[in-house]
Amino acid sequence: MSEYPISSRTQLKRSPKKACYDKQQIREILDEALVCHVSTHWHGQPLVQPTIHWVDGDYLYIHGSSKNGLFQALLAGQPAAICVTLLDGLVFARSAFHHSVNYRSVMIYAQAELIDEEQEKRRQLDLLMERVREGRSLEARPANDTELKATAVLAFKLEEVSAKIRRGGPIDEAEDMQLDVWAGVQPITQVLGEIELD
Amino acid sequence: MSEYPISSRTQLKRSPKKACYDKQQIREILDEALVCHVSTHWHGQPLVQPTIHWVDGDYLYIHGSSKNGLFQALLAGQPAAICVTLLDGLVFARSAFHHSVNYRSVMIYAQAELIDEEQEKRRQLDLLMERVREGRSLEARPANDTELKATAVLAFKLEEVSAKIRRGGPIDEAEDMQLDVWAGVQPITQVLGEIELD
Repeated sequence: MSEYPISSRTQLKRSPKKACYDKQQIREILDEALVCHVSTHWHGQPLVQPTIHWVDGDYLYIHGSSKNGLFQALLAGQPAAICVTLLDGLVFARSAFHHSVNYRSVMIYAQAELIDEEQEKRRQLDLLMERVREGRSLEARPANDTELKATAVLAFKLEEVSAKIRRGGPIDEAEDMQLDVWAGVQPITQVLGEIELD
Repeated sequence: MSEYPISSRTQLKRSPKKACYDKQQIREILDEALVCHVSTHWHGQPLVQPTIHWVDGDYLYIHGSSKNGLFQALLAGQPAAICVTLLDGLVFARSAFHHSVNYRSVMIYAQAELIDEEQEKRRQLDLLMERVREGRSLEARPANDTELKATAVLAFKLEEVSAKIRRGGPIDEAEDMQLDVWAGVQPITQVLGEIELD
């Protein structure tokens, strides 16, 4: 199946044209973005945290300190909502109201699963390094047992997933088109520079 | 006072050196970032949503459709956690474990306040336009009453606020420094391009 099924949580109610459930397009957004925001709640308080993520098969993965408070809430069974956002441009319309931004964002609702088996944990952490820089997992000194124990790897099954995408120029009201106001799009890109050696 | 007071939620437990409560530095991060992630929970489910924000005085503001589900939860009194993240670089260490990222992120815990008074609502939406492009609020056709009504503006008092900042090169274990592994930082920048006129 090439699309994620639509759930009550992933159905876009107000901008159905911006909705996307296509697995390939969603995978591309997840691969391009270097940061996701993971949220949950714990004792009535919302928690949200930025972290790098990676995808392998049908799962999105994150890692962090085993002592991380949000991780502990997730491992206690609290549900996660994970958002990945790429900002692509500022959209200037002729009216204030129709100003907008171009973006590609993905929402994932899932329960965390702890990756505890050593070989799979090492394999996933290698995939993270490879995602950031091909070949890096073969260069760096691998984690020792203490380091591996200090790191928690969480997996989230990609099942209840949607994307919201806005592309293109401003959409003005017909009666505003003759106004003497410039309109357009200012593109935004994330640029990775040259590595500065240590 | 030049620093936000530390609360149990904004105290960094594991990386105190990365903690920052300086109001000026936090304001700079909030002004530089174009996107924040707002999270709360509703009927046991976590919600998280990306949106553009702006700062005026002691408040951070967001806007969106009056019908937005997350906004309705916030206006029903649910607490918000808001995260603003700037990714500044990929940090390559000699060991897998000490790979990291350079970033500046801000956490805000607050209750939403609805900006309902028309003049103040218009003034805040003008500030949003001015933040994106100076002078724009004087160029674009102002919102009419219908458009203004369709837009909700929420304010969050900046009181329980902290930043977490990582800068600089990799920090390797002393015994790894002689390894024949390159290390360094790959800078990441967000670039706003030339406006493409509509």
